[in-house]
Amino acid sequence: MASGTAAAAEARRLDPDARIVLFEQGAEISYGACEIPLFLDGTVKDPYKLVAFTPERFEEERGVQVRSLTRVDRFDPRTGDLDFTSLTDGVTGTEKFDKFILSTGARANLPKLKGVEAANVFTVRDLQDAISLERYISTTQISHAVVVGGGFVGIEVAESLTHRGIRVTLLQPAPGPLHDHLEDHMSQLVTHLLEASGVMVRDERMAGLEVSSDNRVNAVKTSSGEMVGCQLVILAMGITPNTDLGVAAGIKIGETGAYRVNDRMRTNLANGWACGDCIEVERVIDGRPVLSPLSLTAFKTGRVAGKNAARRGAHKPARFEGVVSAQGLKVFDDEVAYLGLTEIAARESEISATTVTIRHRTKAALIPDSRPIDVVLVFETSRGRILGAQLVGGPGTVLRVNTLIPLVRRGATVADLYEQDLIYSPPFSPRLDPLLVAARKAIRKLEEIRVS
Amino acid sequence: MASGTAAAAEARRLDPDARIVLFEQGAEISYGACEIPLFLDGTVKDPYKLVAFTPERFEEERGVQVRSLTRVDRFDPRTGDLDFTSLTDGVTGTEKFDKFILSTGARANLPKLKGVEAANVFTVRDLQDAISLERYISTTQISHAVVVGGGFVGIEVAESLTHRGIRVTLLQPAPGPLHDHLEDHMSQLVTHLLEASGVMVRDERMAGLEVSSDNRVNAVKTSSGEMVGCQLVILAMGITPNTDLGVAAGIKIGETGAYRVNDRMRTNLANGWACGDCIEVERVIDGRPVLSPLSLTAFKTGRVAGKNAARRGAHKPARFEGVVSAQGLKVFDDEVAYLGLTEIAARESEISATTVTIRHRTKAALIPDSRPIDVVLVFETSRGRILGAQLVGGPGTVLRVNTLIPLVRRGATVADLYEQDLIYSPPFSPRLDPLLVAARKAIRKLEEIRVS
Repeated sequence: MASGTAAAAEARRLDPDARIVLFEQGAEISYGACEIPLFLDGTVKDPYKLVAFTPERFEEERGVQVRSLTRVDRFDPRTGDLDFTSLTDGVTGTEKFDKFILSTGARANLPKLKGVEAANVFTVRDLQDAISLERYISTTQISHAVVVGGGFVGIEVAESLTHRGIRVTLLQPAPGPLHDHLEDHMSQLVTHLLEASGVMVRDERMAGLEVSSDNRVNAVKTSSGEMVGCQLVILAMGITPNTDLGVAAGIKIGETGAYRVNDRMRTNLANGWACGDCIEVERVIDGRPVLSPLSLTAFKTGRVAGKNAARRGAHKPARFEGVVSAQGLKVFDDEVAYLGLTEIAARESEISATTVTIRHRTKAALIPDSRPIDVVLVFETSRGRILGAQLVGGPGTVLRVNTLIPLVRRGATVADLYEQDLIYSPPFSPRLDPLLVAARKAIRKLEEIRVS
Repeated sequence: MASGTAAAAEARRLDPDARIVLFEQGAEISYGACEIPLFLDGTVKDPYKLVAFTPERFEEERGVQVRSLTRVDRFDPRTGDLDFTSLTDGVTGTEKFDKFILSTGARANLPKLKGVEAANVFTVRDLQDAISLERYISTTQISHAVVVGGGFVGIEVAESLTHRGIRVTLLQPAPGPLHDHLEDHMSQLVTHLLEASGVMVRDERMAGLEVSSDNRVNAVKTSSGEMVGCQLVILAMGITPNTDLGVAAGIKIGETGAYRVNDRMRTNLANGWACGDCIEVERVIDGRPVLSPLSLTAFKTGRVAGKNAARRGAHKPARFEGVVSAQGLKVFDDEVAYLGLTEIAARESEISATTVTIRHRTKAALIPDSRPIDVVLVFETSRGRILGAQLVGGPGTVLRVNTLIPLVRRGATVADLYEQDLIYSPPFSPRLDPLLVAARKAIRKLEEIRVS
């Protein structure tokens, strides 16, 4: 999506003469998927405000032919033949190509349970999902919804529905929300934030769906056997890269299940590149391939793929520098942000890691809207290299994580962090920024470890 | 202040047995000077809430003898004799010492004009200044005040007085407020922010004071000869390091007029260290000595001085890593932040520099409280090394500057900045963070310069 259009636009910029065709199954080629919560919670009334480029405008301004609502059935990288079917009229066609870029994205995971196809069960993967869900909310009496999954999307949807006056139960087994990114005690803090704003967080999985005669789920059965009555179910159970099309054409996938590409976004085929949510990228901290379904990753890998697909001899190849996997989200009036590895993830990468946690304030204590902030630093036990960070707190929490990104990218230590002269100004920070307080505690912990 | 107590506390931590005496002319040894605006604007009613440690508590908890309200008249580094006078009763005394740490701070600059000593002319350097000013405001009918000087302190006082219902005229000659830290067009933005909130900014100097028979200034004469009637004058004309005591004892000063120290905070004398606002420190970007009258610099140089003064053979000397000169302030509902060199300052350091300016948004445009933000990057023309940055915009502006600090400290380029995967989440950032948009523009400008 962001990736495909970025790739096409960049290829066009480098090569004004190439014929470039963009295939898209959906109606839209370019919209702000991250802004879907703003539509669901009612802040933005018109979903098409999220659209950055219509197919028509993209064709006109970028000189790229767009075939939207069109499915690519198969393509052959050796012969350069591509078969497609229009989803509007069923008419099929073929296209010849020299080079191809895969930007097939990812799809929402669905459980293998009866009832998943019911009329009031939704995923929130793309704009059409969101439009369908919003229409359902607007036209149906809903007092209680069950959201399945306490990741990024589940939390955002739970908040949006709460703002719409719907009571929400969030099903998320222990250790709790965002547990791929947060230590257990930080995940607990997120649970507290959700519960303080009225979301019921249940430490359980979904075990079944009870469907009524009108094909609507009226209760979710949990792993403890309890029935939770509801009028709406949202599945936010993660995503899976779409790779069928490429695999059939001989493109290799990596250990994450996504297309494997090098740092130039090239696949195993000399005339094929891939970008966006369908690829795995390098996490710079430990060199491991990871999924990074973030808008910025999509945009950047798209540009790299487009540039390298279009470049001729004179141009240097573009490279993608990997990710630190930083992300931030709003949880009602508070903020959650994280980057890099948890202690468990470090162990999985065979790095000996230690953590510290501090509680400090977002601003000087005398400032009326100063709020608590909790900071976890994950660092290498041998020499203090920062491996990850997790922050939960009031306004001013998410932007603080950006400060760590340049440090983590270059393998900086907690001592390096402590040397940074971060701004002290009471409306913005306590005298020692929470990041510096965490760094100081980490330095002391390392000293203790060395002594013992 | 922050520096002296930090030095004493750190020295005590390293050496539990040393006799340590802290001399202070004022009544207080440890308070949040940066929090004075909160007291002046009425947010904090009790000025003693700004006090971190009373002399008594510091003596008790840190085991340091405190002689407050005591003036050091002279000291001799060779003989180890120090003469002092109590300011409460005029009694004199002497003290013997092996080592000394100077933390004599800085004083407010005063113009050589008749009337500066009038009863309604104030500076805002320390807590006692602020208490006197606040008492005057609370007990006197003031409709209009003149603030002289558009630096950090002048802007903060202008805002505080405005919040108290006092009309303010700020005298600041061209190019405008904060011109040591901002390009001219960014300084103009600050003028606009002040004017939008009712502060009148006049592009003039103070040329004289008209004093009435009751020893009060009733008008300020400006450089154009105009008389600006007022009931209160605040002088915010910068500071000068207090060095008389040390100079008399043979301590050398540097090109800024402050004590010259090495990176261990040692003066030219083997048994003498100095820290805080009375010293000059290295600006890491160009290696020049600068004044850095910031709380964090005071705290850190104090710790380094205290540690090195107390250390014995076994301990490694502590070092101060220099400053990037980052600062942030609130200007009514907006924020201003800067770091490093302006284009003019770069030229003075004989570095060929270029700038770019971009206007973007603090958050995704669809977020209701998304606000404009202007970003200037100053960078080396030859290879794009970041030399400075200036940001003016809505909430979320100041914390963004922290992201640049680790980059600037290690000599990173605008291309390095553009590689950072800063968080995109609509409530916190547009898809490309304003810093990345500025970096991209800088990269393109460098490409144009190379081609031409």
